[in-house]
Amino acid sequence: MDQPATRAETADSPSHTHVTFDDGIMLECGTTLPSHTVAYRTYGTLNADRSNAVLVCHALTGDQYVAEDHPITGKPGWWTAVVGPGRPVDTNRFFVICPNVLGGCMGSTGPLSPRPRADGSDSSEPWGTDFPPVTIRDMVRAQKQLTDYLGIQRLFAVIGGSMGGMQVLQWAAAYPDSVFAALPIATASYHSAQNIAFHEVGRQAIFADPDWQAGQYWRHGRIPARGLAVARMCAHITYLSEEALTRKFGRRLQNAPKDSTEAISLFGEMFEVESYLRHQGSTFVQRFDANSYLTITRAMDYFDLAADCGGDLATAFKGTRTRFLLASFTSDWLFPTEESRFVARALNRAGANVSFVEFPTDKGHDAFLLDEPDFHRTLAGFLRGCAMHAGLEARP
Amino acid sequence: MDQPATRAETADSPSHTHVTFDDGIMLECGTTLPSHTVAYRTYGTLNADRSNAVLVCHALTGDQYVAEDHPITGKPGWWTAVVGPGRPVDTNRFFVICPNVLGGCMGSTGPLSPRPRADGSDSSEPWGTDFPPVTIRDMVRAQKQLTDYLGIQRLFAVIGGSMGGMQVLQWAAAYPDSVFAALPIATASYHSAQNIAFHEVGRQAIFADPDWQAGQYWRHGRIPARGLAVARMCAHITYLSEEALTRKFGRRLQNAPKDSTEAISLFGEMFEVESYLRHQGSTFVQRFDANSYLTITRAMDYFDLAADCGGDLATAFKGTRTRFLLASFTSDWLFPTEESRFVARALNRAGANVSFVEFPTDKGHDAFLLDEPDFHRTLAGFLRGCAMHAGLEARP
Repeated sequence: MDQPATRAETADSPSHTHVTFDDGIMLECGTTLPSHTVAYRTYGTLNADRSNAVLVCHALTGDQYVAEDHPITGKPGWWTAVVGPGRPVDTNRFFVICPNVLGGCMGSTGPLSPRPRADGSDSSEPWGTDFPPVTIRDMVRAQKQLTDYLGIQRLFAVIGGSMGGMQVLQWAAAYPDSVFAALPIATASYHSAQNIAFHEVGRQAIFADPDWQAGQYWRHGRIPARGLAVARMCAHITYLSEEALTRKFGRRLQNAPKDSTEAISLFGEMFEVESYLRHQGSTFVQRFDANSYLTITRAMDYFDLAADCGGDLATAFKGTRTRFLLASFTSDWLFPTEESRFVARALNRAGANVSFVEFPTDKGHDAFLLDEPDFHRTLAGFLRGCAMHAGLEARP
Repeated sequence: MDQPATRAETADSPSHTHVTFDDGIMLECGTTLPSHTVAYRTYGTLNADRSNAVLVCHALTGDQYVAEDHPITGKPGWWTAVVGPGRPVDTNRFFVICPNVLGGCMGSTGPLSPRPRADGSDSSEPWGTDFPPVTIRDMVRAQKQLTDYLGIQRLFAVIGGSMGGMQVLQWAAAYPDSVFAALPIATASYHSAQNIAFHEVGRQAIFADPDWQAGQYWRHGRIPARGLAVARMCAHITYLSEEALTRKFGRRLQNAPKDSTEAISLFGEMFEVESYLRHQGSTFVQRFDANSYLTITRAMDYFDLAADCGGDLATAFKGTRTRFLLASFTSDWLFPTEESRFVARALNRAGANVSFVEFPTDKGHDAFLLDEPDFHRTLAGFLRGCAMHAGLEARP
């Protein structure tokens, strides 16, 4: 493969470290992007034989700021529990790469990016909803371009939860020789009808916001903040569990806002869980683009790895030498254990080297992001074993 | 108790059979409605000693048209599977009364009703969001006024599912001597944090609709149809189960609407489950008022029968002679079996006569409305047994 035409920059805030590929990428939908940018962050040091790279794939609303403070929100990285010095994905030992997905809004090409003119130059208008639909496979192809650009032929590991886990599965299926170890966490090989339904509610909430303006909201200097907030609130419930909500909030009341026509409260009080959800919605819209949300939810909905392989998921992994660790969480009802088990069975049929662990927790889908010591010990142990097999670390 | 001042009418379509109570009702929030109307339907014939009356309580978006075609939608009554000639609640044997709840929008006093002027006369403006918050207890008090008005001292049975079941529990707690048999179905004695959270998403979707106009949408000749549709879509997912959605729709695609900017489809296709949800949303807004939806969801959220009794649910039923049948459904994740079991244990502590049956089904919360032969046989058998105990039917 020829070295692609690229433009690399490490730009100051508010732009993001990125590389631009000018060779054009033909998406699964048939549209070709004449050039595209992958924004990414790296942590740790690539070793001399380039064999210690770990690719971290983010979830629907994540981004490349996995293990450092976020440049917009100022909050800690989204997976500091797992990625960092001394953490399971130890940046003292591994070279961690985390790209923003194609279709995202944190520097990678997506609906916010300038739409190219016929002559190939960028127009001043963003793509908006005219941005072509992308798939998980498209996202992974863009990530492969990034790792090629970084000179990494084989990733030591690819890891991610939720939509990140879909990318891990896609990586292992599409580029088996480039993935020594694959860790799909709290994920599935297809998006279920119920998950599609919840995504559709979120999309309809965005469409219903008059500030959405058929997706061209920048023309009016506004964003569909209320619709996007409702979408986030609805999704956020699915990330938690009934037990977690009961434990955190139960039916506790707090004072309702006095100036709001929206508080139809009985005695001037509202439930704490309502206040929490409103906060989740309003903070989300400060950092996320509504058209990206539409694009990425759609990519998740279309994901069906078995369908891409004639209907049998085992075919996707035939002959693979990648080592797999699947992890699920008991109270995760968005990506229930059964869906990980389905993947594990397919991997077994394919004769793959696969470990599968279900972790007991009441934290729901979000557990993969949170303080779960058993989960973290398992990740660390699996990666240490793989490092020995890969010759990265001496056997004891 | 004095016979209250009433005005009864059986009006032509589009108004509804109703009775108006002019004595005033003081609501739990402290506000007094100077008069209020209860719209209702009856089926079957009241026997000579007025002992065969069955009160049916409807759920959040139900109404009094339980066993006949709906005057607005033309669709069959919402519980024809259970109520009707030869059905478990057999209108050949029982006199069935089904009122529209206080706060509803099908003829009973609610946010759509004219707001009284200071002199007591009706203004031309509806209450809108100034309608006082109501509780399940308020709803049941209005129903008690209706049954008193109809000359029924003791109901043979009170039955309802979901929010209807909350009313059944409230009836049994507040008026134990007026309820021979109580059948709370697919319900709970309090609304859980997760259920409150889903309701809040629906409310926020309504608030986010610009046509909501701070609740005074009638002034602009529009209704917040898109927000209410999103609320309905979100709620509708919670009425089903993942299994039911998978069985009905799976990941099947259909052609996407060609003229819609809202279809971000990959190959001109959308998922069938999306189309189904959109249909559920758009048909709902034709028959339901957004401010009623806000009022009634709030009433459900505030329901906590144990809290009203010092924290111990058994206290609510102390000394009761009412016979209870609790029913739950295995795949109901909105009102899981555990919540019915919690009620059953409280009733056991109170020494009540209680049967509790969990029915296996994959239909989710909606199962209580659908064709579930085991459930229907159990209802019929329980009611027949109670009818013997009540002296309504000869023992075999």
